[in-house]
Amino acid sequence: MIEKVNLAAKLATFADHWTPRMVGEVNDCAVKLVKIQGEFVWHHHEAEDELFLVVKGRFRMDFRDGSVPVEEGEIIVVPRGAEHRPVADEEAHVLLFEPRTTVNTGNVTEARTVRTPERI
Amino acid sequence: MIEKVNLAAKLATFADHWTPRMVGEVNDCAVKLVKIQGEFVWHHHEAEDELFLVVKGRFRMDFRDGSVPVEEGEIIVVPRGAEHRPVADEEAHVLLFEPRTTVNTGNVTEARTVRTPERI
Repeated sequence: MIEKVNLAAKLATFADHWTPRMVGEVNDCAVKLVKIQGEFVWHHHEAEDELFLVVKGRFRMDFRDGSVPVEEGEIIVVPRGAEHRPVADEEAHVLLFEPRTTVNTGNVTEARTVRTPERI
Repeated sequence: MIEKVNLAAKLATFADHWTPRMVGEVNDCAVKLVKIQGEFVWHHHEAEDELFLVVKGRFRMDFRDGSVPVEEGEIIVVPRGAEHRPVADEEAHVLLFEPRTTVNTGNVTEARTVRTPERI
């Protein structure tokens, strides 16, 4: 039988920030959940667009030419090549929809880089 | 500047059922919103998985071997080839992630078939 995914239940299974977990796959894309707080690293994705949907809280997406506040129930799509940096003053819960191969820090490798997200 | 999408604001722009609107694009996938109520048609998608995320309300996904109730904040991914039929006793608002080319009624053509969703 095909199983559904409860976002809140999946989010309750982890507490750390900036480490996306995979909760589903659709065609060649992954559905990921991540908790964020603080400033992430500036990066871009060479060949992949990335969708962020705020499930809880809010964050700000910084671009080199300005910032976009993204609230609960809002989506932002970062097109390939666009340098961006998510920043959350308080903890926010975000659903990501992106190719299975997308690395969270894009062209940058640092302490928070996750190449193979855990499936939860 | 890159614009965000407020799901509730987009959903407020239309009232009809079973007619998905496109609100964003991510790689070769479309993000669509649809209001559903009643029984849809049994169908499948030959080559595409389809993700349903309940933004408001609830619905039931019927499969030939059983049904899955899907609540607000829950996701169900219908794999390619699986015959399915969404049913909503009361109006529900659903976000869809699927290839840009996916037709809502899959292998079936009927009155509610939408081949080119309006972009809102």
